[in-house]
Amino acid sequence: MIYADHAATTRLRDCALQAMMPFLTDCYANASGAYPFGQAAKKALEDARRQIADCIHAAPSGIIFTSGGSESDNQAIRSAAEIGARSDKKHIISAAFEHHAVLRTLDALRADGWEITLLDVGERGIVSAEQVAAAIRPDTALVSVMFANNEIGTIQPAAEIGAVCRQRGVLFHTDAVQAAGHLPIDTEEMQIDLLSASAHKFGGPKGAGFLYARRGISLTPLIYGGAQERNRRAGTENIPAIVGMAAALAEACAEMESESAAVRRQRDAIIAALSEIPGSMLNGDAEMRLPSNISFCFAGIESETLLLLLGERGICASVGSACASGAAEPSHVLRAIGRSDALARGALRLTIGAELTDSDRQTLIAAVRENVERLRAISHR
Amino acid sequence: MIYADHAATTRLRDCALQAMMPFLTDCYANASGAYPFGQAAKKALEDARRQIADCIHAAPSGIIFTSGGSESDNQAIRSAAEIGARSDKKHIISAAFEHHAVLRTLDALRADGWEITLLDVGERGIVSAEQVAAAIRPDTALVSVMFANNEIGTIQPAAEIGAVCRQRGVLFHTDAVQAAGHLPIDTEEMQIDLLSASAHKFGGPKGAGFLYARRGISLTPLIYGGAQERNRRAGTENIPAIVGMAAALAEACAEMESESAAVRRQRDAIIAALSEIPGSMLNGDAEMRLPSNISFCFAGIESETLLLLLGERGICASVGSACASGAAEPSHVLRAIGRSDALARGALRLTIGAELTDSDRQTLIAAVRENVERLRAISHR
Repeated sequence: MIYADHAATTRLRDCALQAMMPFLTDCYANASGAYPFGQAAKKALEDARRQIADCIHAAPSGIIFTSGGSESDNQAIRSAAEIGARSDKKHIISAAFEHHAVLRTLDALRADGWEITLLDVGERGIVSAEQVAAAIRPDTALVSVMFANNEIGTIQPAAEIGAVCRQRGVLFHTDAVQAAGHLPIDTEEMQIDLLSASAHKFGGPKGAGFLYARRGISLTPLIYGGAQERNRRAGTENIPAIVGMAAALAEACAEMESESAAVRRQRDAIIAALSEIPGSMLNGDAEMRLPSNISFCFAGIESETLLLLLGERGICASVGSACASGAAEPSHVLRAIGRSDALARGALRLTIGAELTDSDRQTLIAAVRENVERLRAISHR
Repeated sequence: MIYADHAATTRLRDCALQAMMPFLTDCYANASGAYPFGQAAKKALEDARRQIADCIHAAPSGIIFTSGGSESDNQAIRSAAEIGARSDKKHIISAAFEHHAVLRTLDALRADGWEITLLDVGERGIVSAEQVAAAIRPDTALVSVMFANNEIGTIQPAAEIGAVCRQRGVLFHTDAVQAAGHLPIDTEEMQIDLLSASAHKFGGPKGAGFLYARRGISLTPLIYGGAQERNRRAGTENIPAIVGMAAALAEACAEMESESAAVRRQRDAIIAALSEIPGSMLNGDAEMRLPSNISFCFAGIESETLLLLLGERGICASVGSACASGAAEPSHVLRAIGRSDALARGALRLTIGAELTDSDRQTLIAAVRENVERLRAISHR
């Protein structure tokens, strides 16, 4: 099997599983327990918080644990909207190619009277700080622009957008689900106010994520109940997953430089080879993209069939967002970069990992090339 | 160590961990993946859904997976409130001793214009179907009464309340976080419309829960984003935890009869022994209570100190809800059954499991008795 869907989810890192095992077995206490057994769980929780905060250069008190990236995105945006509403600021700026966790939350706010500006992302799939600056109004409460796109892998100028937002006194949220553990993140230097991340995208467990909020930004609970996470997120803390997330992020950050250089080399070789297929178009900027991401449109084919044929050859690939599968509509991301619906229907996303060998790469390239040709031959008959 | 805080959390069952391990290691696919590796995850997800539905006699399509009991409670109540609001029904009936996940959500709705009636639970800590019937008004959208209380363990007449609600055309939600896997639940026979549960309370993993909604009841998402759970709960499905939850619930239900008989015997012996301590009062009804639950108030002592001393002797116990710890206020549940604040400050909750031996029981009784006497002696000096 060749796994080329790392943007959908990643294998749990060994260090993460090892960190989790004690908490999945003997150390099962509730972190709220007043006894030593509970206090050990509480200590693991706070150690994990510090470890994660260090990875993104943030204060530990600014990190809250959630069930994943979608929950973090929802809570970040809802919180900023509520802060804005207190001073009658009900305008939010975001981008047309954001994840649905952002876009659908904005839809819900729009229905409640907020005004939403979705910036154009151009053919390269990049939002500029100038666009953000031009869109900010006196009633703008929030700018939400993702750190890197999940379908086409383009990296956004977070630091520049952060600088504009800070200067204009507007909150800046970034969905860093695809970036955390894969790209350097410094919330201070980049002036990020709110940041969402998901553990299973960087070798941590599913069902865990975090939300960072800069000091002074009060988070509105999405889930009401107990006093956990200092009243910002109710529910028994998922200690095994949180501890696993911290171990995974720490390792991902420590190995980032060497790992991403190797992955980037494989990526560039695959992009070069697939670009030679007639009627192929690379989606998103060639330089400003995640080391793992390869996204193409192939004219005259249907992605669904291509995926099926690749799947039969043991290749795990996708059209775009895992979260959007099942949807009949062409990708909103590909539409946002100007691809026609016809072309978008022939999309393929390969997101590779460090385990990809040279031989895997050759198999992958050959399989895509052969099957694209095969599908075109069939449709021409 | 003697673990007597099963209401806070339970040890992960071996069958659950075994079910989870493949999905924590080799079978890490995203269930949205269109390739065979992803489809295997999808199949595990749907198998788990059927397994869980069978345990509570429900249709699989009515089960959605959440991050836990608090999230389920929040979504159940928000959804029912929204359904009610569509026909101008903005009145909700609940009870004074509900979990904070219910009460705080109701607080938020109250602030948004809903009217909330909290029923009295009496000294026994039980809500009657007659009380519910008397409180229902033409504009009542929802009755939310827990299946069994988390602090004092009292079991509510769910079937009778369900019958009243169904007859009057009002939705019935029950927080079954303490009941699922411990008491028989039949959503059809009991006419339950919405039910919340949490995996880690019945030997499943933390970070997983489910919400049951009867056919025809549309759930409003709490977390917006991808199309997972048929657009009712966004975010990558936490397959390892979901599979573990299903295995744990199936085992808990299969072993329920024998396990609860044994636990109940130990419980009754402990209640009998602790009742002999002068100035002790059992909280909640003696008969209609969870097999695991022992809850007392001891006059003239401070729970915090008692817990500390018990903790030093390796006993894990609590005051009341784990979710409320850290709060300086006396338990709202003990207040609801009419305990004075002074008496409520001397509360102790022991929630035992099947692993408790006779020798553990004797140690537990002796430790409580000795330390209560010791604390009273100190405060009398």
